[in-house]
Amino acid sequence: MSELDTLIQLLAKLPGLGPRSARRAALHLIKRRESLLVRPCPICGNLDTVRPCAICRDPKRDETAICVVEDLADLWALERTGAFRGRYHVLGGTLSALDGVGPEELNIERLLGRLRPGQELILALNATVEGQTTAHYLADRVAGSGVTVSRLAQGVPIGGELDYLDDGTLTAALKARRAL
Amino acid sequence: MSELDTLIQLLAKLPGLGPRSARRAALHLIKRRESLLVRPCPICGNLDTVRPCAICRDPKRDETAICVVEDLADLWALERTGAFRGRYHVLGGTLSALDGVGPEELNIERLLGRLRPGQELILALNATVEGQTTAHYLADRVAGSGVTVSRLAQGVPIGGELDYLDDGTLTAALKARRAL
Repeated sequence: MSELDTLIQLLAKLPGLGPRSARRAALHLIKRRESLLVRPCPICGNLDTVRPCAICRDPKRDETAICVVEDLADLWALERTGAFRGRYHVLGGTLSALDGVGPEELNIERLLGRLRPGQELILALNATVEGQTTAHYLADRVAGSGVTVSRLAQGVPIGGELDYLDDGTLTAALKARRAL
Repeated sequence: MSELDTLIQLLAKLPGLGPRSARRAALHLIKRRESLLVRPCPICGNLDTVRPCAICRDPKRDETAICVVEDLADLWALERTGAFRGRYHVLGGTLSALDGVGPEELNIERLLGRLRPGQELILALNATVEGQTTAHYLADRVAGSGVTVSRLAQGVPIGGELDYLDDGTLTAALKARRAL
């Protein structure tokens, strides 16, 4: 993704743009302007100048783990951690009855076509109502196919002080407590 | 804790104080002024006008689960969720080499004296370095006593969008992912 990185670095030099807003501005430009040479990867929906994208081409990445994200910004966030060495699938949004987004508006059929028994599908969707609705929909669609479905842990963020957390997060952290 | 609630409600009426700052102000007053009639509970370290405190006295609360918190603000935060129906133990701080806080400065010996085989000890400590150091110290002290030790789940807070989370939280959420 070196061309994308260059674009982000150029944008980050503009007054008022930090690293995060430069990434978001780059994403906006990419989504809106056909003239940029990046295109969606036909396998995973990631944007890149090569087809399939660099992640789908990389033989060193684990093919048995597919991480489903809402959009490219989430894929980038996970790549920045360096903690995930599998493949991705970019949905392009979440199910939303309010905004009229149904399953056919999202990159779901291609995801189902990629899955093989024995794989793990990691649903890295936002911990919002729409994200969790979409996660449950995908888990239902995949059920019985021999694919393990998991989701990101919910709980106390690193550095988090209990007194500053909302009740929902505290309740989830308590219910999902883990043996030490 | 009705007297405490009254104090918090009175403080919340002061200009500039919302519900959270009123709770913190109440805690400050209680900690600093001996003239208030609340005293630490001899069992758990909670502050109350009765001894033992109302939580330790309540026969409806589960005696087999003890939730360890750093200070009273954390106990209150957990009580507000209504999700925990066991007992508490207030440590009064965390281990900190930098601030010279060792095990003997904390309410630890009394905790060890309360534990019985078959109980669960839930370490609800802040997800900070000090909190996690203290959690590991307690887990070591309790090891082999027949007490199950658990800690709050760490991960994505409810409502959290991945793009706004720090790398540490995303990495922890990915590593602690759960089957759906």
